[in-house]
Amino acid sequence: MDGSIKKIAVLGSTGSVGQQALEIIRVLPDRFQVIGLAAGENLGLLEKQIREFQPVMFYCSIEPDFACKGKFLSMEQIASHPEVDLVVIATSGKAGLEPALAALRAGKTVALANKEVLVMAGEIITREAKRHQAEILPIDSEHSAIWQCLRGEESKPRRILLTASGGPFYRYSQSQLSEVTAEQALYHPTWKMGRKITIDSATLMNKGLEVIEAHWLFDVPFESIEILIHPQSIVHSMVEFVDGSVKAQLSLPDMRLPIQYALCYPERLLNSKLPRLDLSKIQYLNFEPVDLNIFPCLRLALDAGRRGGTYPAVLCAADEVAVGFFLSHQIGFLDIALLVEDALEKHQGINKPTLDEIRQADIWAREYVKHLSSSFRRDKETISS
Amino acid sequence: MDGSIKKIAVLGSTGSVGQQALEIIRVLPDRFQVIGLAAGENLGLLEKQIREFQPVMFYCSIEPDFACKGKFLSMEQIASHPEVDLVVIATSGKAGLEPALAALRAGKTVALANKEVLVMAGEIITREAKRHQAEILPIDSEHSAIWQCLRGEESKPRRILLTASGGPFYRYSQSQLSEVTAEQALYHPTWKMGRKITIDSATLMNKGLEVIEAHWLFDVPFESIEILIHPQSIVHSMVEFVDGSVKAQLSLPDMRLPIQYALCYPERLLNSKLPRLDLSKIQYLNFEPVDLNIFPCLRLALDAGRRGGTYPAVLCAADEVAVGFFLSHQIGFLDIALLVEDALEKHQGINKPTLDEIRQADIWAREYVKHLSSSFRRDKETISS
Repeated sequence: MDGSIKKIAVLGSTGSVGQQALEIIRVLPDRFQVIGLAAGENLGLLEKQIREFQPVMFYCSIEPDFACKGKFLSMEQIASHPEVDLVVIATSGKAGLEPALAALRAGKTVALANKEVLVMAGEIITREAKRHQAEILPIDSEHSAIWQCLRGEESKPRRILLTASGGPFYRYSQSQLSEVTAEQALYHPTWKMGRKITIDSATLMNKGLEVIEAHWLFDVPFESIEILIHPQSIVHSMVEFVDGSVKAQLSLPDMRLPIQYALCYPERLLNSKLPRLDLSKIQYLNFEPVDLNIFPCLRLALDAGRRGGTYPAVLCAADEVAVGFFLSHQIGFLDIALLVEDALEKHQGINKPTLDEIRQADIWAREYVKHLSSSFRRDKETISS
Repeated sequence: MDGSIKKIAVLGSTGSVGQQALEIIRVLPDRFQVIGLAAGENLGLLEKQIREFQPVMFYCSIEPDFACKGKFLSMEQIASHPEVDLVVIATSGKAGLEPALAALRAGKTVALANKEVLVMAGEIITREAKRHQAEILPIDSEHSAIWQCLRGEESKPRRILLTASGGPFYRYSQSQLSEVTAEQALYHPTWKMGRKITIDSATLMNKGLEVIEAHWLFDVPFESIEILIHPQSIVHSMVEFVDGSVKAQLSLPDMRLPIQYALCYPERLLNSKLPRLDLSKIQYLNFEPVDLNIFPCLRLALDAGRRGGTYPAVLCAADEVAVGFFLSHQIGFLDIALLVEDALEKHQGINKPTLDEIRQADIWAREYVKHLSSSFRRDKETISS
């Protein structure tokens, strides 16, 4: 692939990761050609992107109000299009699942930013990737770090050390946490990200999803994945090998770096817009074990990951709905974990589920949490009235 | 080489690195066979090692006072012996130079712990290695770290970040440094090593030699090698790539790890005797820029490295003699740098020297520093009387 142009489809192009992927492509125009774009409802931005990159195909979830030369196709059609070399899956929630599968089944390289794809259907996704000899390249900073540390190594990791900033509330007590507002939770100390993932970072649900994702991506058992709180977000994760050697990947917290790494892999390319790390300015890096009692969402995610089957799908769906309610001020911060926990307890898990069973579990969990939260809200209204 | 037995010669087997190499081999007996041992004057320990490992050949610099089945051969003969797969060069000072060359010219893999080999004759050594397709595997913890970080990477590093503990006197003033005794300097805060290298660590001369060594090993210009003070000695060095990503290698400070890595390469093997790092116990890692004014030996080494030719050989020789005088209480701690600086100033450098010219420069520098230091000592006696 050296020197030749990679033909790229960016699904979720108007989101945070999608926009940054296009930013990288813009800086390296002799390396990439955007031939597909897909967005949800942000038609204004999508139209701009289409004018700039002139893709041969595009998708949006509502009817476009603009005219363009590109063909309107489904995300699955774009992801598996014969001309595409690499598909960036930067959609959110379960939206990336079907396009990811379509891409892998067509043997495409998938640069994956959408955690839920592997969390919900890790077994199916990794099996299909293997069957069709399609590569999955992680875009998440933590998984990119692990992937970079494993580069060229023949032996499997003994342990993965997944770092976590701890989010904005790391030192909060339970009573402080109960008062947290959506506005406070949307302010992340080190990373700029989308709204849903920022809340997931504050509850540490995001870290739990990352553990499940790492389990599938690197074929490492859950007991060999450890979380370390690292407030500076400079060390993005580490790998311990069987001889006791540990490798770490570091950079300033900037998503463009892991995005570029995945897009350019196996090359590393100069991009003067990417920041350079000066450790003597950072001065110190610190590390602490994580306390699962303060962050019940993390515990729930680890449990769901270990139980496997349809539980991780229920975890994702319940969390997505609960976070939505929190963002619209309908429930409190600590209610997110309560709702997710209740859904996981009530769920009748299925082992080695089909994609359809995963979809059913997802639908069930969404309905269940919606129903449950309405009683939460009624309780609150009763208390406050 | 997987699964088969590597036949090893350990030159400098009674020194610190040599003994630790044998310790690794002892723990992994189905992977290694010691077929050659070479020592200086420590006949007692050498005899023990010969009884245990039964090498087919051995060497010592004085006549052995014991009988054994192995053949007495020169270090060059051992290093280039047809049966040898890998030669560990753990000699000290210039003693490793000829055996290293002999090994490389015979196409052997050389695991190199003897810094002076590359510092004195980097150009010749790397040229001969290339010509005979022989690999040089670094054993120094810093160079092993860089080598591990570069593993599997296709692109050259943009910058090497060489870490330095700073030694025992990192916060000392000039007047405090002038009072330092050999006993204080022999106490290193994080590493247990031989006497000469421990003093070189206190003056930071050792770090300067490592910069020169890194320059030759990894073909990186001097201006792309940066030193960071890192008192915990957990991050053994780092590599920055062109995309801004930084990779680091970490472990508890224990030379057995880089030794084992070089011996087993490309495999990583389980060795339950090697320590495991627990970062949540270490809690924090810090990094500071280095102050060349406090450590003139470091500045001298960097200058000599940049000037090249015979200057690095003069640096090594002058330092070795000066450190010897310091250890025998004949000169002060700060006099080491003064003697080395004077030798470098007086030396008539030769560009692209032959091995013989390097040897001549070495002899000249030793004589010069011996002569100069006697006037130093006379001055001192005059002052104190």
